[in-house]
Amino acid sequence: MKITNTSIEVSKLSNGNALSIEVVQYQSETPGPHIYIQANVHGAELQGNLVIAQLMDYFAEHEFSGKLTFVPFANPLASTQSMGGYTYGRFNARTGDNWNRNYTDVSKTNKSVIGGSIAEFVNKVTTQGLDSESITENFKQFLNACYEKLLDVTNPYAISENKYINTILQKLACDADVVLDLHTGGRATRYIYAAEFEQKDAIKMGFPHTLIIPNEFDGALDEACFMPWVTLRKSLQSMNLDFEIPIKAYTVELGSEEDVNSEDAKLDCLKILNYLKEIGTHQNMIEVTSEPQYFCSLKDYRSYFAATGGLCEYLVEPATHFNKGDPLACIHQFDKLQYQWKKVVIKANNNGIMINRATSSNIMQGEVLFQVMENYSCSN
Amino acid sequence: MKITNTSIEVSKLSNGNALSIEVVQYQSETPGPHIYIQANVHGAELQGNLVIAQLMDYFAEHEFSGKLTFVPFANPLASTQSMGGYTYGRFNARTGDNWNRNYTDVSKTNKSVIGGSIAEFVNKVTTQGLDSESITENFKQFLNACYEKLLDVTNPYAISENKYINTILQKLACDADVVLDLHTGGRATRYIYAAEFEQKDAIKMGFPHTLIIPNEFDGALDEACFMPWVTLRKSLQSMNLDFEIPIKAYTVELGSEEDVNSEDAKLDCLKILNYLKEIGTHQNMIEVTSEPQYFCSLKDYRSYFAATGGLCEYLVEPATHFNKGDPLACIHQFDKLQYQWKKVVIKANNNGIMINRATSSNIMQGEVLFQVMENYSCSN
Amino acid sequence: MKITNTSIEVSKLSNGNALSIEVVQYQSETPGPHIYIQANVHGAELQGNLVIAQLMDYFAEHEFSGKLTFVPFANPLASTQSMGGYTYGRFNARTGDNWNRNYTDVSKTNKSVIGGSIAEFVNKVTTQGLDSESITENFKQFLNACYEKLLDVTNPYAISENKYINTILQKLACDADVVLDLHTGGRATRYIYAAEFEQKDAIKMGFPHTLIIPNEFDGALDEACFMPWVTLRKSLQSMNLDFEIPIKAYTVELGSEEDVNSEDAKLDCLKILNYLKEIGTHQNMIEVTSEPQYFCSLKDYRSYFAATGGLCEYLVEPATHFNKGDPLACIHQFDKLQYQWKKVVIKANNNGIMINRATSSNIMQGEVLFQVMENYSCSN
Amino acid sequence: MKITNTSIEVSKLSNGNALSIEVVQYQSETPGPHIYIQANVHGAELQGNLVIAQLMDYFAEHEFSGKLTFVPFANPLASTQSMGGYTYGRFNARTGDNWNRNYTDVSKTNKSVIGGSIAEFVNKVTTQGLDSESITENFKQFLNACYEKLLDVTNPYAISENKYINTILQKLACDADVVLDLHTGGRATRYIYAAEFEQKDAIKMGFPHTLIIPNEFDGALDEACFMPWVTLRKSLQSMNLDFEIPIKAYTVELGSEEDVNSEDAKLDCLKILNYLKEIGTHQNMIEVTSEPQYFCSLKDYRSYFAATGGLCEYLVEPATHFNKGDPLACIHQFDKLQYQWKKVVIKANNNGIMINRATSSNIMQGEVLFQVMENYSCSN
Repeated sequence: MKITNTSIEVSKLSNGNALSIEVVQYQSETPGPHIYIQANVHGAELQGNLVIAQLMDYFAEHEFSGKLTFVPFANPLASTQSMGGYTYGRFNARTGDNWNRNYTDVSKTNKSVIGGSIAEFVNKVTTQGLDSESITENFKQFLNACYEKLLDVTNPYAISENKYINTILQKLACDADVVLDLHTGGRATRYIYAAEFEQKDAIKMGFPHTLIIPNEFDGALDEACFMPWVTLRKSLQSMNLDFEIPIKAYTVELGSEEDVNSEDAKLDCLKILNYLKEIGTHQNMIEVTSEPQYFCSLKDYRSYFAATGGLCEYLVEPATHFNKGDPLACIHQFDKLQYQWKKVVIKANNNGIMINRATSSNIMQGEVLFQVMENYSCSN
Repeated sequence: MKITNTSIEVSKLSNGNALSIEVVQYQSETPGPHIYIQANVHGAELQGNLVIAQLMDYFAEHEFSGKLTFVPFANPLASTQSMGGYTYGRFNARTGDNWNRNYTDVSKTNKSVIGGSIAEFVNKVTTQGLDSESITENFKQFLNACYEKLLDVTNPYAISENKYINTILQKLACDADVVLDLHTGGRATRYIYAAEFEQKDAIKMGFPHTLIIPNEFDGALDEACFMPWVTLRKSLQSMNLDFEIPIKAYTVELGSEEDVNSEDAKLDCLKILNYLKEIGTHQNMIEVTSEPQYFCSLKDYRSYFAATGGLCEYLVEPATHFNKGDPLACIHQFDKLQYQWKKVVIKANNNGIMINRATSSNIMQGEVLFQVMENYSCSN
Repeated sequence: MKITNTSIEVSKLSNGNALSIEVVQYQSETPGPHIYIQANVHGAELQGNLVIAQLMDYFAEHEFSGKLTFVPFANPLASTQSMGGYTYGRFNARTGDNWNRNYTDVSKTNKSVIGGSIAEFVNKVTTQGLDSESITENFKQFLNACYEKLLDVTNPYAISENKYINTILQKLACDADVVLDLHTGGRATRYIYAAEFEQKDAIKMGFPHTLIIPNEFDGALDEACFMPWVTLRKSLQSMNLDFEIPIKAYTVELGSEEDVNSEDAKLDCLKILNYLKEIGTHQNMIEVTSEPQYFCSLKDYRSYFAATGGLCEYLVEPATHFNKGDPLACIHQFDKLQYQWKKVVIKANNNGIMINRATSSNIMQGEVLFQVMENYSCSN
Repeated sequence: MKITNTSIEVSKLSNGNALSIEVVQYQSETPGPHIYIQANVHGAELQGNLVIAQLMDYFAEHEFSGKLTFVPFANPLASTQSMGGYTYGRFNARTGDNWNRNYTDVSKTNKSVIGGSIAEFVNKVTTQGLDSESITENFKQFLNACYEKLLDVTNPYAISENKYINTILQKLACDADVVLDLHTGGRATRYIYAAEFEQKDAIKMGFPHTLIIPNEFDGALDEACFMPWVTLRKSLQSMNLDFEIPIKAYTVELGSEEDVNSEDAKLDCLKILNYLKEIGTHQNMIEVTSEPQYFCSLKDYRSYFAATGGLCEYLVEPATHFNKGDPLACIHQFDKLQYQWKKVVIKANNNGIMINRATSSNIMQGEVLFQVMENYSCSN
C-alpha cells in the first residue's frame, strides 16, 4: 500500500498567505474501486473529519483493494470564518453563496466554459463503438478535462471563490466509483441523501434515515458527481444503448454541527466500512447491529417555519417518531397587553420523524424550526 | 388628492417587538396609472429612500393622475443587520438568501401553494370571451389572491423570512402599471435592468446604462412582476389571441451603497418624473439634459474575478469607457521569496464601460473586482 | 397587588421602527423589599426569560410584600442580531463592545457628566446629620438623577448604543434592594458572581458555584449597582460613620446559551424563590434539596486557551470535579508531514471544577477552551 | 545593506493551516537608529501597506544608517475576516476584542506573568551605576525577555489570539528607537496620535493633525511601547537620576479604511522620509510643501453620537474646519404620523475640525457619526 499526501492551494489571501487542503491517497497493489471521501465543506460540520481519521487508521492497518482518497477539512475558506462562539460556515460570508451549491453540472454548462459537451462525447464514443467499460474510463477523463478547464484562472471572467473550491473537489472526485460527502445537520440525527437511481444501493449504507432525491441538479457535490452519468445514460439509451451508471455519490449527515465525538465516529466508521465491504474495498467481517431504515422522498422532507417570534423550546429530539397532533415545540412569548406569558404550541401536521432542528431557541418569525420526514417507509 | 399611510408588520421578533414597513399611497381624483416605487430591499442600498422622499414632496404639491404607492425602507430585516461599520444587508445573515431572490413566479408555482394556476385563469377568461382590459383587471385580482394565499402563516410548512417580506412587497406591487425597485450597486454608476419586452420603454427612463435581461425568472421583484404577464401573453398567443403586456417593472440602480446624497437624488428624481410624464402620471414640463444611453445584454455584463489575493487599487471609476488592454486595476502583493512588492495589473479583456466595482481593496482570490458592460450599443 | 407594564424605547432604527423593552412591575400593598430581575442582556442568553416567566406566574398567584420589577428580553439590540444559526449577541456587532460592560460607576464619573458627585452627596447628608435609612433613600434618588442626566440625548457628545441601553437598565435597578441579572455561560453549569461584601448573603442564593469578585468595577450591572454603595460606605467610614451596604446585586448564570428549558427553569425559579423568602419578599415554605456549594475567588477562575488549532473534543462536562493531570479535552489534528492524525490531550493543571466550555469544537489557536474553578472551598 | 525576511506563524487554524506574517529587515553597515514600521493591524486599514511598499523600494535604492524593520499585513487574523463586501477587522469577530487593545504594559503586569519587574530592573541598574545608554540597552533586553515569557504557549492559561499577535508585534518593536503603527480612520483625513512627552518631536512628523494623548496606557501599540519607558524614567527620577525617554512611538492614521491609493501613498511616504531624515536614518533632501499643523488634547477629540436613527447625509468632509452652529450632518427620517419626511440637522456644538466620519449613512440611534478636534492650536 502506498500513501501520498498532496497539498492543494485553494485560496490566496490578501496578505500573501494561502489556504490549502490536504489530499491523502492510499493506493493498494490489488485493483479495486476508487473511494473518495471528503468532510467539512460546510465550516461547522466537523464530525466527518474524525470519521476520516478513523478510516485512515483502519486502512493503514488492514488490507484493501483499490484506491482511497481522503480529504478532511475540505473547505478552509468556510471553517476559518467564525463569529461569536460559532463557525459561520454554511455559506460564504462575503456573498451568501452556500458552499455546497456551486459544483458544476457539465451537462448544463456551455461548451465554451468547459471545452466540450456530453453530446460530442457520446457522438465520439458511439462512433468508435466502445463498450461500457471503455466509455466509463473515457468519460472520467472527459470530466477531468472539463474541470481542469474551469479552474483556469488566466480567464479574467473566472472564477469565484465558491466555484474554485468546489471545482477543485469535484475534479478530485471525478474518477471515483463511490463519493461520500460527509456533512452534519444543525441538531440532527444520522441520515443520507440518495438519488433515485441509488435507492437500492443506499440500503447497504445502513443509515437509519434516507432522503430520496430526484436525479436532478441543485448544485451539491453528490448531484454534480452523478448528473453527468445520468445524462450520459439517457443519451445512450436514446440510441438504444444499454448503460448502467457505474458510480455512486452520497451526502452523508453525521449528527450535529460544531461537535466532534470519537465514540459516535466509531459507529459512523463502522457503517462506512460495512458499505465498503459490499462495494469490494475489503473483505473483513464486521459485526453489525441491524436497525430499521426509513426512507422518504425529498418532497416529503418538510420544514416547519416559525409563524411568530419567541423562545422556542424543542420538545422532540432528533430521530424521534411522532404522530399527527403531537406537540413538537413550544414558543414562549410575552404578551405585553395582557402582562403575561403565553405558549404557542406547534403540533405535528402529520405523522413523521424528527430529523433536524434549529440550533438556537432565539427565534424570529420565518426561521426554520425543524425538518421532518413524512410519508416514510421502512426497509425492514 | 388623498394620502394614506399603512403600517405592515413584516417580522415578529423573539422579544415581541415587530419590524414593520410604511406604505404611503397618494390617490388622485383623476384616473391614471398606478405607480409603485420601493427602495432599500437590500439593507445598504439607501439612496432610493431619498428619491422617494423627493417624489413624495413633489407630488404633494403638483397635480397628477392615478395612484402612487411609495414603500421606502422596504426591508427592515435587512437594514437593521450591521457588522463593524457597515450594513450587512444584501442577504439574510441567518440563511445566506439574497433578499431580492425570493419573490414568486406564479407561473412556476404549484397550485396547492397559490390556490390557482395561470392555465386555469386563461381557460376561464377565454371561455368568458373577455377583452384585454378585463383580462388585465381580472389577472391582477388573480395575482393578488395568489400572494394572499402564500402569506398564510397558519400553514406550518410556510413561510420563510425572505419569502414573507418578498411576498408582502410583491402583493403591494401586483396591481401597479409601473413598478420601480430602487437599488444601488457597490461602488457604481446609475443603471437599470430592463426585460427584453421593455426595451423600447426603457429608453424613456433616461438612465445612462441599461442591462437587457431575458424574459425569465431569477427571483427578483421586476421579474416576479412581469413573468406572470409574459406567461399569460404566451398562453393567449398560443390560442391566437393578441395581448400586450400592460405593465412595466424595472430594477433601478442609483449609484453606491451606504451613501445618501440629496443633490444626486434630485437628478434621480428628475429622471423618474420625466418617465412618469411619458407614462401619463403628470404633464409637467421638466427640463432635460439629454445624455447618451448605453445598452447591453445581461450576458455581456461581465464580472472580473480576482485570480489572486492582494490589495486592489481600482484604476477606472464607474461610468468610464475603456478599451481592450487598458489597465483596470492593480493588485499589490508582497512577494516574500523576493523580498519585494509586485503589481499584478488587470487589463481589459475587451472594450467596455465600468459599471460597478467592489467596495473594498482587501481582496481574496475569487472575489468579484468589478462588473463591466461589453458589446454595448448607444441609443443616440 | 397592582401590575403595571411600561414600554421603554431603547433604540430608534434607521427606518423609523423602534426597539423597546417591557418593564413589568408587581406592587404589593404590604411594604417589603424591591426586587429587580432582568434577563437576556446578552442576546443568546435566553433561559433567564423563562425563569422570569415562572416568577411572574408564581407571584401573580401568591402573596408577597414589596415591589417586584421584571425585565425579560432586556436587550433587543443584542437578541435581534444573528448570523448563521446563532445569535450574535455577546457584544455589539458594530463596535465590539460587550453589552454587559458599559454600565456606569458614578463614583468614577465626572461631575459634568452626571450632574453631581458622591463626595458632594456625603458632604450634604453628613452636614444634615441624616441616619442610615435616610441616607439610603437619598442616595437612591441621587443615583436616579445621575442616570437621568446620562440619558440626555440632547447632548450631542452623548450617548452610545451600549451606554444608552445599559443606563436605562441601571436606572430601573437603582432603587432596588436586590438586583438579579440573569445570564448564561456558553456550555455551562449554574453559577453566580458575588462581591466580597456579599459572600455570606450569596450562600442563601443556593447556587452550586459562586465566584467571589473584588469590590471593584469592570463595567457589569452587578458592579455598577454596588460600587456607588461601596464608595459611599468607604467615604462615611472615613468620617467614622457606620454604614452597612443596604443592597445586593448578583450576576446569575443559568446554564448554556441558545437554550431554553422549562424543567430547568422550575429549579432555577425555586432557588430564587427561596432566596426571596430569606430576603423577606414572601413567607412560603418551599421544599429544598440541599446540595453542596463551592466558592472560589475570581483570580482562581481560570481560562484554558488553545495552544494550537484543531478539532477539540471536550472530555469533561460542566459541573464535573477533576484532579490535576486528568484529561480535560483532546484536540484532533491532521499532521500532513506524517500522513496521520494526532491527539493533543489537554490535562488539568490543577484540581478543579469544570464550569463553562466553548460552544464549538472548531478551534483556532488562542481561543478559550473552558473555564474552571481552582482552589475552591465548599460551604457544607 | 543586508535584507532578511522572516516568516512568523501567528495562528494555527483548526485545519492545520497557519497564518503568518513576514518581517522584512534592512540592516545598514553604518550604525543608526532602528525604525520599526507596521501596518494593517486592523483588518480594513490597508493604506499603510502601500506606504511600507514605497519605503522598502526607496531604501532598497538609497543609502541609510541603522536598521529598518517592516511588517506589512501585520495581522492576518483580522484582514482575513470579511462579511458582505467589507473587511470585519477592527475587532476579533469571535470575542469583540479590538485588535489594537491587547498589547501589554509591563509596568502593570504581574511578575509571575512576565518573569520580572521594572522595580527590580531599576534596582539592579542603579546598584550597578549604569549610565543612560547602558540602561537603555539593558532595558530593551529586559522588555524582550518579558514578551518572550508572555508568548510561552506551554502555559495552559495563556494566551488568547489577540494577546498572542499583539505580543509578537510588540516584541519585534521593543528594541526600536522609533515605532510607527500605520492605521486609518473610517472616512478620515491624515492624523497622528502623539504622547505628551513626544509633543515636540511630533511636529517633525509633519502631519496636518495631531492628537496629544496622556502618558497613559489604553492597550495600543504606541502606548505599550512608551509606557515602560515612562515608568522607568519616573522611577529613576524619584531617585534623582536624570533620564530621557530614548524612544518614540506613534499611531499614524492614513485616511480611510478599505482603500489603497498609490498617489496618496507617495505623500504619506514623503512625510515619513522627512521624519526619518530628522531622526538620522538618512540625509537626503526631500522637497517639502509646508502646511499648517493642528494639535489638540485627546479630551478635545470629541465624538458626536446619533440621537436618533435615520439616513445620515454627511455635510462636511474630513479635514474641513467649521464653526459653532454650522450644519455638520442631516439625518433624513420618515415621519409616519405626518406622512412626511423630516430632516434632523446636526449642528456643530463648537468650532472644530472634522477628522473622521462613519462609513455608512444607515444610522441607528447611538452610533458614532463623526469625530472632531475642538480647542485646537496651530503650530505655524
